[in-house]
Amino acid sequence: MSVITIERKVLEKNDELAARNRAFFSQQGVFVVNLVSSPGSGKTSILERTLEYLAGRLPIAVIEGDVQTDFDAQRVAKFNVPVVQIVTNGGCHLDAKLVHDALGQLPIAGIRLLIIENVGNLVCPANYDLGEAIKVVVASTTEGDDKPLKYPSMFLNASVLIVNKVDLLPYVSCSLAALKGNALRINPSLAVFETSCTTKQGIADWAEWLVKKSQASSLGGSR
Amino acid sequence: MSVITIERKVLEKNDELAARNRAFFSQQGVFVVNLVSSPGSGKTSILERTLEYLAGRLPIAVIEGDVQTDFDAQRVAKFNVPVVQIVTNGGCHLDAKLVHDALGQLPIAGIRLLIIENVGNLVCPANYDLGEAIKVVVASTTEGDDKPLKYPSMFLNASVLIVNKVDLLPYVSCSLAALKGNALRINPSLAVFETSCTTKQGIADWAEWLVKKSQASSLGGSR
Repeated sequence: MSVITIERKVLEKNDELAARNRAFFSQQGVFVVNLVSSPGSGKTSILERTLEYLAGRLPIAVIEGDVQTDFDAQRVAKFNVPVVQIVTNGGCHLDAKLVHDALGQLPIAGIRLLIIENVGNLVCPANYDLGEAIKVVVASTTEGDDKPLKYPSMFLNASVLIVNKVDLLPYVSCSLAALKGNALRINPSLAVFETSCTTKQGIADWAEWLVKKSQASSLGGSR
Repeated sequence: MSVITIERKVLEKNDELAARNRAFFSQQGVFVVNLVSSPGSGKTSILERTLEYLAGRLPIAVIEGDVQTDFDAQRVAKFNVPVVQIVTNGGCHLDAKLVHDALGQLPIAGIRLLIIENVGNLVCPANYDLGEAIKVVVASTTEGDDKPLKYPSMFLNASVLIVNKVDLLPYVSCSLAALKGNALRINPSLAVFETSCTTKQGIADWAEWLVKKSQASSLGGSR
């Protein structure tokens, strides 16, 4: 019982800090994406293909979250964008405080799009608001088509679903229609993109959508 | 600071209950496997192929852990083994108390092998002892070869690594040698099996290993 109370307090405190992050992002006119998925769904690969496609189009920054290693930040840094790595040291999710602290090391002025890649975990990050504009959940075809029903919170809290690894559909037991249907049953307002980081299918659609959202967010910002 | 203290108390309490579960399993002469992985790595498929291969060989029971749905228990029940589904309702891992409660609904007398399929999560279940004999971690080739380095606790605490979906190696960016090398760098004593639930490659090796372990455990038990 006491644990539940403490957890609630932790979440209340997190929500408070997330609201502050959100106000800061709004003031800066930066559109912020919280990218979530299971380990190995392809978050970093999607990020790489997105940065490659959008090179020179708009100023982008990245915050990487990992339990251990700065491998992902190293991959992202190759695209010449500012990137900060958060290592959670066993922690299963990012929280608003970690993002706030990372912002202190990120030259945010002029940035229009900030992508925060969360820890690979389809459960815990669903409950922690970072102050983002939207959560984007990646589900890859290799994970099967039942994941939205088995891990509903993440799909309920997301605004976008990226179905990744569609090039592997011929080789795996996954119905694309069932995967999308299950996700939309949990959350009918999800925008859905289908991508492959190998063939680059769908990357342009997703990246152009991001640009539009970032431009709208920038117009809404106070500077 | 208070949160850390509470968490420690939670883990201490869990360890106490896990020790009780372990004593009970030992007394019953049942070998208990805690099966862990990311969502969609193929835990349930491996379980299905294992139950199919071992049909009639030894008495097996299953505990299924999921955030939502009893889909996995339904899949397992087709193999005519006793199965109990634990739905965590958002909880990101099984704990010793949940397993203890599930045992009350499982006819355990005479069972030689109990497989507990944990919630799909490569982070949180690493910290929660259920009273099992061994943790078996599944990593599929579609997740890439860096996962042991990025999620080291799970690989450190496991006794066995099953590299699954080896049939997809020609289509994905994953070096089998690097995946196994990274896992063994974290934990040199890991026993490694390579499987495909599509071609059934490696299932016999893994299942025969389980039989040997279960027989040894049964001989050590007091009944």
